[in-house]
Amino acid sequence: MSILVLGTVALDSVKTPFGERQEILGGSAAHFSMAARIFTKVYLVSIIGLDFPPKFIKFLADKGVILSGIKKEQGNTFRWQGKYEGDCNTAITIDTQLGVLSIFKPQISKEHRVIKNIFLANVDPDIQSCLLDSMKNPFIGLDSMNYWINTKKESLLKVIKRVHLFVANEQEARSLTGENNLVKAAAGLTKLGAKMVVIKKGEHGVIFYSPKVIFSLPAFPVTEVIDPTGAGDTFAGGLMGYLATKDKIRNSDIKQALAYATICASFNVEGFGLEKTAKLTRNYLEKRLKEYRMISSLTD
Amino acid sequence: MSILVLGTVALDSVKTPFGERQEILGGSAAHFSMAARIFTKVYLVSIIGLDFPPKFIKFLADKGVILSGIKKEQGNTFRWQGKYEGDCNTAITIDTQLGVLSIFKPQISKEHRVIKNIFLANVDPDIQSCLLDSMKNPFIGLDSMNYWINTKKESLLKVIKRVHLFVANEQEARSLTGENNLVKAAAGLTKLGAKMVVIKKGEHGVIFYSPKVIFSLPAFPVTEVIDPTGAGDTFAGGLMGYLATKDKIRNSDIKQALAYATICASFNVEGFGLEKTAKLTRNYLEKRLKEYRMISSLTD
Repeated sequence: MSILVLGTVALDSVKTPFGERQEILGGSAAHFSMAARIFTKVYLVSIIGLDFPPKFIKFLADKGVILSGIKKEQGNTFRWQGKYEGDCNTAITIDTQLGVLSIFKPQISKEHRVIKNIFLANVDPDIQSCLLDSMKNPFIGLDSMNYWINTKKESLLKVIKRVHLFVANEQEARSLTGENNLVKAAAGLTKLGAKMVVIKKGEHGVIFYSPKVIFSLPAFPVTEVIDPTGAGDTFAGGLMGYLATKDKIRNSDIKQALAYATICASFNVEGFGLEKTAKLTRNYLEKRLKEYRMISSLTD
Repeated sequence: MSILVLGTVALDSVKTPFGERQEILGGSAAHFSMAARIFTKVYLVSIIGLDFPPKFIKFLADKGVILSGIKKEQGNTFRWQGKYEGDCNTAITIDTQLGVLSIFKPQISKEHRVIKNIFLANVDPDIQSCLLDSMKNPFIGLDSMNYWINTKKESLLKVIKRVHLFVANEQEARSLTGENNLVKAAAGLTKLGAKMVVIKKGEHGVIFYSPKVIFSLPAFPVTEVIDPTGAGDTFAGGLMGYLATKDKIRNSDIKQALAYATICASFNVEGFGLEKTAKLTRNYLEKRLKEYRMISSLTD
């Protein structure tokens, strides 16, 4: 089954200890798509400005991402400028230019409305809600960020009540629930209404929590983190992309999806922007998955 | 095969968000023994003062720990006072009273000299070296702490060259190698001479590294961390205790040992001092190990 992702398409400028890139293709929906496309058909819903380079449209289309949901508006494309230092664990934002993102209203066609899997990547929770209102009973994944927790908490809490799978990072989970312990924080997020919760811990792996089951998996050990921008979105793309191929989600499917998501994210951090994930094939994934099993499974 | 542990026996006073305990039994060798005894015969080599409560001697002896290597000297027993706040991840030392520890010379008998497994728990690296000089060709595990890295680095580097398995935490590994990335830090520790390296990441699990193989396992998810004092020593006790039962160590034995170590440490943090690990049996371990497999193995 196909998947629709709502999120940003951005021009990122990033500096890490390994180098620097100016105005490369980024954004939550772009990173998500680059992983999800490996498993299923991806419809991208976003907004760009008149300045958006046509080569990036061609690039996404060549990767099989369906772009009919990208609206082009008067104004500039969303831009993010940031840097990473030391072990590249924390992004330091230097500048954010919202541009056309500030007038974004998702443009939903008939074709979109019947898609059974949706991922609400990180954008304003009111925009996320707005999209859900026009959809027919889908399986919904959600991501957000501390900025929305601080500025639009009520709106975000309303979205959380509607979603099946909430993908948060450690800080977001702690900040939304007031719980330091991550298992308690995950449980707290299900009490807020999310049916299932994934807590991303970056280089430390991931915790999955539902009231019936809990999983904890390590990250794939990467020795050279070149640029972690978009790793969380890539993770979500692998997770939701794999789950979208299943009619009914069993526990073993969730574990498998978490493993694919982990592998997708490990490729993402090994290059700037979409450099590495753009080249990803199912074959490369399977090869690293085998290695991941050797490294992390007790029984292999 | 039996195991000898060299380390401290201490009187700990600790305050955490869950309560407070005064002068309870602690120390690296005591915590190590409480886990290792589940798998094998443990010889404890340490020093105590005249003030050491006889009830603690009885307690250790009742648990089967062999105490002929504990020297009693004029003066006070080593005391540590500390506290934990928030999510109990970092110990804040309030006071340290070395007492008789400052004159500690390990007392090795004929019976000790032939023991084939040794764990050098956290004490002065010169004392660790001194013990190794009197032993016959054993399998050696090592722990240390930032204090020795800062004050006796040369001595510590000499010990590292002699050991088979170096168990370090994240900060120690980074500080000894100057590498932020943990896989690189682990590799760096093997270049310093340790044949195998385990990096403990607390609530985030553990990385095992040897030039031929790498493993990464998550921690067992604990919801109520009551008191983490001694969790690293308990981990080492489970790890070395299990490995001591093997004539030849295969990769599958290492994974199994890491899993037991993880489980032992998870029990340790669920109570003050040795409260929980004192009650541990192989049966309890196996039960939680089964749960751990469900939570963390990709294939189960």
